[in-house]
Amino acid sequence: MTSAPSRTVRIGVLGGGTVAAPVVGLLRERAADLAVQAGARLEVVAVAVADVAKQRPDAVPGALVTGDATAVVADPTVDVVVELIGGVDVAGPLVRAALEAGKPVVTANKALLASPEGARLRSLARSRGVDLLYEAAVAGAIPLVRALRQSLTGERIVRVMGIVNGTTNYLLTKMDEGDEPYEAVLAEAQRLGLAERDPTADVAGYDAAAKAAILAGVAFGYDVSVDQVHCEGITSIEQPDVAFARRSGHVIKLLAVVERLGVGSVSVRVHPTLVSRHHPLAGVRDAFNAVFVEGEAAGELMLYGQGAGGLPTASAVVGDVIDAARNLLSGTTAPTPERSPVHLEPLEGLRSRYYVRLDVEDRPGVLGAVATAFGHHGVSISSMEQETPERLADEEGAAGRDAAGMARLLFVTHEATTGDVVATLDDLGGVPGVVRVANAVRILPWGRG
Amino acid sequence: MTSAPSRTVRIGVLGGGTVAAPVVGLLRERAADLAVQAGARLEVVAVAVADVAKQRPDAVPGALVTGDATAVVADPTVDVVVELIGGVDVAGPLVRAALEAGKPVVTANKALLASPEGARLRSLARSRGVDLLYEAAVAGAIPLVRALRQSLTGERIVRVMGIVNGTTNYLLTKMDEGDEPYEAVLAEAQRLGLAERDPTADVAGYDAAAKAAILAGVAFGYDVSVDQVHCEGITSIEQPDVAFARRSGHVIKLLAVVERLGVGSVSVRVHPTLVSRHHPLAGVRDAFNAVFVEGEAAGELMLYGQGAGGLPTASAVVGDVIDAARNLLSGTTAPTPERSPVHLEPLEGLRSRYYVRLDVEDRPGVLGAVATAFGHHGVSISSMEQETPERLADEEGAAGRDAAGMARLLFVTHEATTGDVVATLDDLGGVPGVVRVANAVRILPWGRG
Repeated sequence: MTSAPSRTVRIGVLGGGTVAAPVVGLLRERAADLAVQAGARLEVVAVAVADVAKQRPDAVPGALVTGDATAVVADPTVDVVVELIGGVDVAGPLVRAALEAGKPVVTANKALLASPEGARLRSLARSRGVDLLYEAAVAGAIPLVRALRQSLTGERIVRVMGIVNGTTNYLLTKMDEGDEPYEAVLAEAQRLGLAERDPTADVAGYDAAAKAAILAGVAFGYDVSVDQVHCEGITSIEQPDVAFARRSGHVIKLLAVVERLGVGSVSVRVHPTLVSRHHPLAGVRDAFNAVFVEGEAAGELMLYGQGAGGLPTASAVVGDVIDAARNLLSGTTAPTPERSPVHLEPLEGLRSRYYVRLDVEDRPGVLGAVATAFGHHGVSISSMEQETPERLADEEGAAGRDAAGMARLLFVTHEATTGDVVATLDDLGGVPGVVRVANAVRILPWGRG
Repeated sequence: MTSAPSRTVRIGVLGGGTVAAPVVGLLRERAADLAVQAGARLEVVAVAVADVAKQRPDAVPGALVTGDATAVVADPTVDVVVELIGGVDVAGPLVRAALEAGKPVVTANKALLASPEGARLRSLARSRGVDLLYEAAVAGAIPLVRALRQSLTGERIVRVMGIVNGTTNYLLTKMDEGDEPYEAVLAEAQRLGLAERDPTADVAGYDAAAKAAILAGVAFGYDVSVDQVHCEGITSIEQPDVAFARRSGHVIKLLAVVERLGVGSVSVRVHPTLVSRHHPLAGVRDAFNAVFVEGEAAGELMLYGQGAGGLPTASAVVGDVIDAARNLLSGTTAPTPERSPVHLEPLEGLRSRYYVRLDVEDRPGVLGAVATAFGHHGVSISSMEQETPERLADEEGAAGRDAAGMARLLFVTHEATTGDVVATLDDLGGVPGVVRVANAVRILPWGRG
């Protein structure tokens, strides 16, 4: 029915890792279908890798492999550059060279995009009228960047909240499902390859912070770099927190939040959050990602899917390659509104309800002193539960019995500023009888049942 | 920071209803922002309505209102036509005239798009190189059409399953939450304006069927019209079905399903379905819509949001208007792969597990005869529950006591073809002691948890 297109767009792939191989595979195996979509034959002409001697999957023909990424970018027969190296130092100059040569770049490199150099590269691409596309950099296969850049282009977005790190969502899901402690589920995730041997980038929230920075740009048109993002990870979350969340109708999620607070003023942050089980984000389980978008006219939207993995990520990269090819042939680019300067609102003034957990000595007077500390900073208590030694021993066996003479206090506050809550927690650490300020987690407001 | 664009794109709006007013309102109130996005000032120059005398919201200035839609389409100063009249007879010729005049058309008209004329209009738009955009026609504010048309353009889509009718999803949610019978929740929905006085188009599945037809085109590139869609509504769903779903870990949803079965062969259908509570579609409550997409490379994706309502739908329309304006200025169109001929697979051969509910006389021998009927057609029973008169009376009070001498049989079958299940149900109607074949509902396979 459809005649083969006469034109060819030549693709240079930089990187030979877990995403590059399925990208090359999809571009070659699905060539006929993709040619119809792109309006041109998409031909992979080179795959630049760090180690040419290394064994490659069959999807990557040896004849295409080269060790010279700079030459691939400079090659005048390469029309589109796909950067899958990752990181800033090596990938940055290559992306810059491609854009300066007027070549569209498709990348999945969140570190680069969330760096100060990322902002400069976006600006360069815009001024040169060249595509810099990065659907795969946030939430993998989920068509989020295009939705925000194009579908919701007429929409005034109020807030974007994402579960954008699959590893931490897997860990939190397993803690919620199985009553197992953090260390046990982390070990299991490492065994399954769902967490790195050094899980810091995931569990400390750094990966999510880079994605939050990119989301701020895509949703609001602000250049934010990862080091400007307030970041709390999940390492403080323990089984008592998960259990409290469950019995109060919540689930704990690590959220990347980008929120418009006023003209040119946004809050960009990553932190664990108690989310109502009726909220659509609560149903996002295991290693899945989702991004919840609130628009003034569109209302609530959520996009859900696989946030990582070679093939899903490759799917997003190939979608961008098709776009880049189409735009190249028609002499246009994807919409890239000019970026504006931004004021990042400090966290101190943000208001939220909080869940607070304290370990205290089980003796008279402690609760009163604790309540006084809350009151001193104007943080009003909405509810309190005390778990006594007996109950801890019943629930937690040996661990509970070790805690003889201790009690656990679980508070939910009314809405208060982060500044006041942080000051309260600081004071609580010095209240006689308070053994440990174990945790303080924000509670997401949610109007519906 | 951003200079005002010098060009103007003139918009003619057809229709003065619940979507037209917020469309005009957004285009006028947000003119400055939208001009940046579109690269041109978007000016509404006319709003054609059926009754010019009728009072309009303030968003629609009286000076723009006209009764002559044909003149708006023909007006050489109108660059883009936004069709929000709905239906086929009036809207169809207007959309045709606009496309023939080379004017991009943005429409939310699912009836037109799912009609045979819709296929001809898409073909006309493609051959003329003019945009025909309809993001708002399926799932309201959810950026689904663009995701399928653009983001997933490189993706081989296997299946699309949507909750695309807010009214029925609201009814099923309330039945699940509140133990109330269908009639009561329908009456309440009508009181709240969430169901029409004559709810047939929604509850019989016709609205969802039109959207399924459009999805078949967007996801697979096949022209399917609404009368080719197999359609079962929710009117047979009663409280015992909802209760069984709940205690078996499911929730009943009305799904529009578009599934690739082979080259050029798809199944397009609408029917109630038992969905595992762990499936992301199960968490889509109230009047919300969601579409679950399975791609070969991308894996599972879901897009969730408001499927109806003036403002959310208007948001999608305005997104399309911006696209149309951008494309018009750059001389391109949105990607519209050529449509292919399709073989619609008859339902008979499709395999599924089924839930079946029978009302029978509570006497020996009936169960045996029923089981024999299943066996006769090779439909294997996976589980059976019998609810006796005592239990019915306990559970259902007066209604249960009226059923003295009756029992309820609830079966779950192993996977069987629709043809065999339908033949079994036909036979069961004639089995002595079977009072009523009350329901038979497909069960969605779901591998996880």
